[in-house]
Amino acid sequence: MPKYTFDKWSDIYANRVKTLRSSAVRDLMSVADMPEVISFAGGFPDVKDFPAGRILKTTTHLMENSKATALQYASSHGDEALRKIIVELLESEKIYVDTDDMMITFGAQQGLDLLAKIFLNPGDIVLAESPTYLGALNAFITYQAQVVQIKMDKNGLIPKELEKTLKGLKKKPKFLYTVPSFQNPSGITLSETRRKSLVKIAKKYDLLIIEDNAYSALRFEGDPLPTLRSLDENIIFLGTFSKIFFIPGARLGWLVAPRAIMEKLLFAKQAADLCCGSLPQKLTEHYLTNYDWRKYAQKMIKKYTKKRDVMLAALKEHFPKEAKWTYPSGGFYIWVTLPEFLDTTEMLAEAVNEQKVAFVPGEGFYYREGGKNKMRLSYCLPSEKEIKEGIKRLAKVVKRNMEIYRSLER
Amino acid sequence: MPKYTFDKWSDIYANRVKTLRSSAVRDLMSVADMPEVISFAGGFPDVKDFPAGRILKTTTHLMENSKATALQYASSHGDEALRKIIVELLESEKIYVDTDDMMITFGAQQGLDLLAKIFLNPGDIVLAESPTYLGALNAFITYQAQVVQIKMDKNGLIPKELEKTLKGLKKKPKFLYTVPSFQNPSGITLSETRRKSLVKIAKKYDLLIIEDNAYSALRFEGDPLPTLRSLDENIIFLGTFSKIFFIPGARLGWLVAPRAIMEKLLFAKQAADLCCGSLPQKLTEHYLTNYDWRKYAQKMIKKYTKKRDVMLAALKEHFPKEAKWTYPSGGFYIWVTLPEFLDTTEMLAEAVNEQKVAFVPGEGFYYREGGKNKMRLSYCLPSEKEIKEGIKRLAKVVKRNMEIYRSLER
Repeated sequence: MPKYTFDKWSDIYANRVKTLRSSAVRDLMSVADMPEVISFAGGFPDVKDFPAGRILKTTTHLMENSKATALQYASSHGDEALRKIIVELLESEKIYVDTDDMMITFGAQQGLDLLAKIFLNPGDIVLAESPTYLGALNAFITYQAQVVQIKMDKNGLIPKELEKTLKGLKKKPKFLYTVPSFQNPSGITLSETRRKSLVKIAKKYDLLIIEDNAYSALRFEGDPLPTLRSLDENIIFLGTFSKIFFIPGARLGWLVAPRAIMEKLLFAKQAADLCCGSLPQKLTEHYLTNYDWRKYAQKMIKKYTKKRDVMLAALKEHFPKEAKWTYPSGGFYIWVTLPEFLDTTEMLAEAVNEQKVAFVPGEGFYYREGGKNKMRLSYCLPSEKEIKEGIKRLAKVVKRNMEIYRSLER
Repeated sequence: MPKYTFDKWSDIYANRVKTLRSSAVRDLMSVADMPEVISFAGGFPDVKDFPAGRILKTTTHLMENSKATALQYASSHGDEALRKIIVELLESEKIYVDTDDMMITFGAQQGLDLLAKIFLNPGDIVLAESPTYLGALNAFITYQAQVVQIKMDKNGLIPKELEKTLKGLKKKPKFLYTVPSFQNPSGITLSETRRKSLVKIAKKYDLLIIEDNAYSALRFEGDPLPTLRSLDENIIFLGTFSKIFFIPGARLGWLVAPRAIMEKLLFAKQAADLCCGSLPQKLTEHYLTNYDWRKYAQKMIKKYTKKRDVMLAALKEHFPKEAKWTYPSGGFYIWVTLPEFLDTTEMLAEAVNEQKVAFVPGEGFYYREGGKNKMRLSYCLPSEKEIKEGIKRLAKVVKRNMEIYRSLER
């Protein structure tokens, strides 16, 4: 698709379109598809070992026993049986809800879109971590919100910084969006003490929290930490089947919200797409009921742990000593900080075209300024061998750019 | 779910939430599920005879040969191979496009949501038929548009009325939304002459048209008419797999738009849900490639034709002479007009609770006023026997309400 097209409709677009921006993830999607490129760009789970026979058996069962519902429209709320299963899963995270407190969404991304739709007027303020998930930024920006990002350190969002921001704002923010576990893009996890502080601050300032829990089941080491939702039932909680339970191919997520908010969300869901597909919902329900998905999850966790270790070792071996990076104890991402004078967006073309390696430049994870010298590396999809080779190639790009800068400095 | 919940968040909702309204279709969904109720409410295709073995074989093929893509995230644009197939299908409707002119959406409903998102500011005007599809109304109302509805007669939208409206408006409308073939809810089809007039008027007034083509393949009799899109390539064209090609369970639709508009839609799609599921896209692609879906479509058209005839005959036999209804030559719906003093919304509870029969009250298909004495009847899902019985029961409710009114009149 050509980048610029003559646009005779430009005078009839909504104001919100002017703020929309292309996602680096999408632009890289085509690149990541090329077999010769080693891609650390997308947060794509490794599905090579997924027991496909289970999907087959489940489909067989569905077509033989419940064709009339599996092929039909579903309710806006989502499949009741599937919601029951999620309710049970959540109990193990000490979240006690009823199926009516939950809706099935088209990926966790839809949950973000629906929440933005029901809460955000143009000019409204949303709080988020700095950096934050670019899909969330896109959802909020589409509704013309301003996103104020709060500093993090290696223990996650800094409560003092949050409080400082809250005191300094002239307008009350609509909500705080946070990914407390193995954050996208930083890989950082919010410590237990801070989780408690965060909930306390939210109560004090009457601040609604949206907790995105996409990655918490992908823990490599250490004890699980309480979800924010388990500490306060006013918190909105997003989950997804894409990363571990099941497969991104089904594109199903879920959302837990206080009942009054859920009513608004259901209206918004109807206007957006009526309902999620029955077939993927029934497939997921039967898969979770009939198979030991936890065993597969454990296997995948081992695999991702090794991949992370390989990437960390390769970074240490090949990257210049001026570079720093995070140590994720779960999830998919390592966040690399290069010297301030480097621009990762500029480096991307060279990396892809000359070294055949891709990553996501840091800028996309910031509302306005920031991230120029940062990059997100995903270790989830490439093989260990590819990770070693890809980091070696990427290090060449980084070092070359540092040399150029220094030679110009002289 | 209780209808009213104490809502301590009521002060932080977006303004657009205040205009959201519940869909009669959703509220009836639970009712329609009860086995003792004969439902003429939902536009649900009859999937009882769908050759489920094909889905099984297709799934087997996918799991054995392309697991890594079928279970993975897809691109925001949609699966390339699937778009190619749709491009070929559209050629038979004399629409000549390229895969880049098209995106896959999560049902045609998502297409409406994305279009509303990129075009509508609060207070903007949208034109539509009177009555119009309630899902479209919901999508537009969510973005706080005002919908101006244009009168129809048995040949569809009246061009003179459209021109009168266009001349009378103080503000230029953003677009006209139309369902030219077997319209939802009226079952009416726009005549060929009028199609040409409509396109001419749109050109004259520089009015963007959105053509919803959900039902055109479900023609029972007569020659196919040209789509509006085949008459002018500036028209946005929506299609769906839910009604005939495939199954609502997959929830896939598509959207054809001028390239410049497509760029905006892709941004909006990313922010909404990143991409459609790979699995349903691959399933649909393989199904359409490897099976004679036209044969199944022909079989279904025969079935729906008989169901329509049974419903028309039953209406003639049982409904009072004061009632009028449309004669659809395709699609799923008959639109019934009762004497002005009757209120179908009020009648619904009696119909469901006492007579165990459901329909959609007319009000939902109007932006503001109108439709109180109208109802939409779908003949697609119930069996012929159920249609006969259901219309008999519904006639009882109608007649009883007429008698009550008349006894009060005296």
